[in-house]
Amino acid sequence: MELWFSEQHTPNVRLSLKVDKQLFSETTEFQRIDIFDSTEFGRLLVLDGRIMVTERDEFIYHEMITHVPMCVNPEVKRVLLVGGGDGGSARELLKYDTIEKIDLVEPDKTLVRACQKFIPQTAACLDNPRIDIFFADALKFIRRKSNEYDLIIVEYIDPFGSGEGLFTKEFYGNCFNALREGGIMVNQHENPFYSLDAAAMQRAHKRLASSFPTVRVYQIHIPTFPAGQWLFGFASKKFHPTNDVDFNRWKSLGLQTKYYNTKIHTGAFALPSYVIKSLQAAE
Amino acid sequence: MELWFSEQHTPNVRLSLKVDKQLFSETTEFQRIDIFDSTEFGRLLVLDGRIMVTERDEFIYHEMITHVPMCVNPEVKRVLLVGGGDGGSARELLKYDTIEKIDLVEPDKTLVRACQKFIPQTAACLDNPRIDIFFADALKFIRRKSNEYDLIIVEYIDPFGSGEGLFTKEFYGNCFNALREGGIMVNQHENPFYSLDAAAMQRAHKRLASSFPTVRVYQIHIPTFPAGQWLFGFASKKFHPTNDVDFNRWKSLGLQTKYYNTKIHTGAFALPSYVIKSLQAAE
Repeated sequence: MELWFSEQHTPNVRLSLKVDKQLFSETTEFQRIDIFDSTEFGRLLVLDGRIMVTERDEFIYHEMITHVPMCVNPEVKRVLLVGGGDGGSARELLKYDTIEKIDLVEPDKTLVRACQKFIPQTAACLDNPRIDIFFADALKFIRRKSNEYDLIIVEYIDPFGSGEGLFTKEFYGNCFNALREGGIMVNQHENPFYSLDAAAMQRAHKRLASSFPTVRVYQIHIPTFPAGQWLFGFASKKFHPTNDVDFNRWKSLGLQTKYYNTKIHTGAFALPSYVIKSLQAAE
Repeated sequence: MELWFSEQHTPNVRLSLKVDKQLFSETTEFQRIDIFDSTEFGRLLVLDGRIMVTERDEFIYHEMITHVPMCVNPEVKRVLLVGGGDGGSARELLKYDTIEKIDLVEPDKTLVRACQKFIPQTAACLDNPRIDIFFADALKFIRRKSNEYDLIIVEYIDPFGSGEGLFTKEFYGNCFNALREGGIMVNQHENPFYSLDAAAMQRAHKRLASSFPTVRVYQIHIPTFPAGQWLFGFASKKFHPTNDVDFNRWKSLGLQTKYYNTKIHTGAFALPSYVIKSLQAAE
């Protein structure tokens, strides 16, 4: 038997992965959740038809969304993860003994439980006592917070899906308020290539740039995401993401990574000219 | 009517593009050549079922394979292009008034003629008097050359296809001999993610590293190539690709590019840790 999962990257482009079995499928009040066993990429987490996690390439996304800000500010003690119910980012953050507390806000309890059951590679860490999971609306959760976190990572689902409300100026302003001095926010920014995604990137960049004094964008190569390329917005109250970073301090921690290193940290902030132009148009 | 072109990236992964029409299809003694009109990517050039050029993203490949070596050594006067019958690299090189002569060696005349007819975006430049096209076997062609070129760019078809003979140690040694002092060679190195492609990358890197004193690898994001990521090997008799490069000199030329800039020049040489490990294993 041949079974193929396909994701439409645009109405005219699709990526298809051969799958062995559908392990889980449920539609919650937030989204449709599917988990597959695939031949090439191991377990796949698919939300509303879009690949969010594969066992084979999730290290790229999760390492780059966490180790970049952690290298810039190794004093981070309290972290807020918005989304990230698969646990991949939490797993990377737990490598830092200096992190005391991670609040993970994920509205969809079913998603977390399904990942714990079927994708332990990312979700096994969610039992860690340093993590508190809040099954709550992130927009409401963040409104009550002030001067509390050193790092906020937003990997909420795509702006075209149910996460739309999060991508508002109010949300970014609230994140700014929830951060302590020296606080950093990292936000996933879609891919810059396909026009609808690039427009989402521009909106996210504009909102971040209007809330924080320092905003830069960096990129990763990830095979299962549209166009194979994904951007993150780095915003900070104080730190520039590549200048004056103590890279030797990060190296001295001796952390094991498969994608991240201190050279690609800086290299990732060098963007193609067409992406720079598109970001500048949004500012 | 719906018509889709699919490329198998591995037996378990495929990328599909919606196409409007097949404009050309012919099997030569070298390969099967197809040209389509696609909805998202404009004209597609497909060789033996693999996408080589799309109008929408070819700028990424052609800018990065040419402007990186040209920025490192702006004194380049004579260039050898091996493969590249679509004309995209030649188009970029012709932007430099300092280049006097480009020898383009492409065994398949039918490929060049089809590109000239159907993909003028890349191939219109092939009439330029600074270009000499040789419909010849590159391995034989290069054997006769000594101390003749400042830059050799090899974008011959994939090592799994009919280009296998080119990817031998002899070929790289001959390229070394054909280069003048200060000569640079750039070679396409496949993607590092899928295991068969990564093995080809390792073989190419090993052969290049055994023929040249300085060898480095750099990467690009290109949506229609497997894993969305592609590597180039940079080899030189004298120049390091990022140290002591006069970036201001390149900027002063005022060339228009959509992907390449002097920051991404350096950034592209910062590779993911798993790629570095894989390259080191091959050395």
